[in-house]
Amino acid sequence: MNMQTPTLLIDKAIACRNIQAMAAKAKRNGLIFRPHFKTHQSQEVGHWFRQYGVTAITVSSVSMAKYFATAGWEDITIAIPFNIHEIDTVNELAVSIRLHLVVESIETLRFLAHHLQASVSIFIKIDTGYHRTGIAYNHWEAIDPLLTYIEQNPSLLSFSGFLQHAGHSYNARGTAAIARVHEESMERLQVLKTHYLPRNPELIVSTGDTPTCSVMEDFSVADEIRPGNFVYYDLTQQLIGSCSYEQIAVAIACPIIALHPERGEIIIYGGGVHFSKDSLEDPILGTIYGRLVANPSNESSSDSDALWGKVIEGAYVSKLSQEHGTIKADAAFIAQCQIGDFVRVLPVHSCMAVDLLVGI
Amino acid sequence: MNMQTPTLLIDKAIACRNIQAMAAKAKRNGLIFRPHFKTHQSQEVGHWFRQYGVTAITVSSVSMAKYFATAGWEDITIAIPFNIHEIDTVNELAVSIRLHLVVESIETLRFLAHHLQASVSIFIKIDTGYHRTGIAYNHWEAIDPLLTYIEQNPSLLSFSGFLQHAGHSYNARGTAAIARVHEESMERLQVLKTHYLPRNPELIVSTGDTPTCSVMEDFSVADEIRPGNFVYYDLTQQLIGSCSYEQIAVAIACPIIALHPERGEIIIYGGGVHFSKDSLEDPILGTIYGRLVANPSNESSSDSDALWGKVIEGAYVSKLSQEHGTIKADAAFIAQCQIGDFVRVLPVHSCMAVDLLVGI
Repeated sequence: MNMQTPTLLIDKAIACRNIQAMAAKAKRNGLIFRPHFKTHQSQEVGHWFRQYGVTAITVSSVSMAKYFATAGWEDITIAIPFNIHEIDTVNELAVSIRLHLVVESIETLRFLAHHLQASVSIFIKIDTGYHRTGIAYNHWEAIDPLLTYIEQNPSLLSFSGFLQHAGHSYNARGTAAIARVHEESMERLQVLKTHYLPRNPELIVSTGDTPTCSVMEDFSVADEIRPGNFVYYDLTQQLIGSCSYEQIAVAIACPIIALHPERGEIIIYGGGVHFSKDSLEDPILGTIYGRLVANPSNESSSDSDALWGKVIEGAYVSKLSQEHGTIKADAAFIAQCQIGDFVRVLPVHSCMAVDLLVGI
Repeated sequence: MNMQTPTLLIDKAIACRNIQAMAAKAKRNGLIFRPHFKTHQSQEVGHWFRQYGVTAITVSSVSMAKYFATAGWEDITIAIPFNIHEIDTVNELAVSIRLHLVVESIETLRFLAHHLQASVSIFIKIDTGYHRTGIAYNHWEAIDPLLTYIEQNPSLLSFSGFLQHAGHSYNARGTAAIARVHEESMERLQVLKTHYLPRNPELIVSTGDTPTCSVMEDFSVADEIRPGNFVYYDLTQQLIGSCSYEQIAVAIACPIIALHPERGEIIIYGGGVHFSKDSLEDPILGTIYGRLVANPSNESSSDSDALWGKVIEGAYVSKLSQEHGTIKADAAFIAQCQIGDFVRVLPVHSCMAVDLLVGI
């Protein structure tokens, strides 16, 4: 590979193992697997999912739905409350694919009923504790009018079910903490499902953030999972406890442009416009923006296709400006580095870094 | 304007006033004005600078240099330690424009001398206290070999002078604090210039971060300023004290996709992929990612071209995920909002938001 500037590296073997493991978990639990494609945003990577039986996907914008529909995906959920200004693109898509929109207000449903030119399915967004969007799981007075409105407009609207995102699992650290978030949201979804199943026997309960989908096994009430980040994972997921370093399938290779051994620093061409400004709080190192991994070794015959090696202890991105990154490392490591060498960095948040480097 | 998704709004009148003020300050101080174009990254906006006499510019990447050379700019400084892997593009540019590269290591100079196909000018990067890149201003033993190497390769390398970036001015709050950073870096540059002027009477001392260039008047030792952010400013610059809210020339218009008056929140389509995850610490509100401004009023005849109005007290972006933004606002404001309305948000860091929304 002839790299010149900050370059996104994807380890296909690791990513495919991640996809395979999640697909297998969905299968043994009888769950629909509708992975979120906002993490990779790539038609090529999307294609890797097909060999694991994936036919339905999730995206986070109308433009992303259009991009993947172009690649032949025919069953897509746009998992963000519908932005009414994008009705024209939705009408284009709705005639050719099975499109699920997410709605949490009667105003949006009314708009859809008046402007749709083909039918779409509706997931009602439910809040089980994350408090970003959605109607509270037990707020029947708010949910009922939406259901009724959908039922009254059967030619344009059909009801897919309830969709939630337990994004507060990202605050968890370790399996027990993830389990607490998961169990609470499953209990709440159970209350919801028990209430509405008699009225809508076909309803689907859709859930799925990467931490709970990675760590938990029992999804009881859920019918569908939609994790996205798991395809690549990242340092945030490692810190949460969703994955090991070895499961991280993405790294960013950046050229060294300056060496400052006098303060234990290397400067790379690679900044906020490549990594995003997402950071994490490491218990020992403090705020970090990435961790260095070894460059691939030519010596190892057993793992000769690996694009990078192990995490280098104590070598991390300590600061990012627009185009520059500052790496802290020990003297022994810096002594081996030369101007022009590429270092490989595991990102804090793969979704954001990939958006910057390949975003559609 | 028919907006559908998060849309970058640039108030040309404000931006041109910002450019005019900085150009006038440079002129009355006898300084070369070489504005940094990484903030706007736009050939069209670049063109606005021409009417204020700007002929020389700064960029932060080789690709940006190429982009602006295409638009007719013929004197460009790439203000980041040169990445040797981009030599081919540099050779393309060096034959047609006056190109200044920034260097801080002998290894990079050697590489250039062996691979250049046309001559370039070299700024030696100097550190006066920011400690990101550069050689310490009084470290003659490190500077001398670079100067000697340049002098020994006159057919390919010429010496432009010394370039510094006092990026630690971004930690300042208020004029007095900015002045302390400025005076210290000017004193240090004076030591440097006094030492090297006898050897290189033509050398240029180039400085210029937006806070010091906005607030200070006396640039004594400097020959050139390179501010960039000032063209648009942003909330960070307002907090530092570089500008008023009225000087901010950029806002992002985002559609409302959910209303949650029960917790004083509005959800917009507009997230980290639009704003970047840059935040600031407001003394009262805590961590914020943007501030709301009023929508333009049709009533005011005196200012009918304004794209937005005044800052709305207490209305701010409190959280960003990939595509969603959470706005905190008071009940009276939320009561006026409807699904589908666009709100206008001043960004925390205009360089990063513009990179995401128009980046080349």
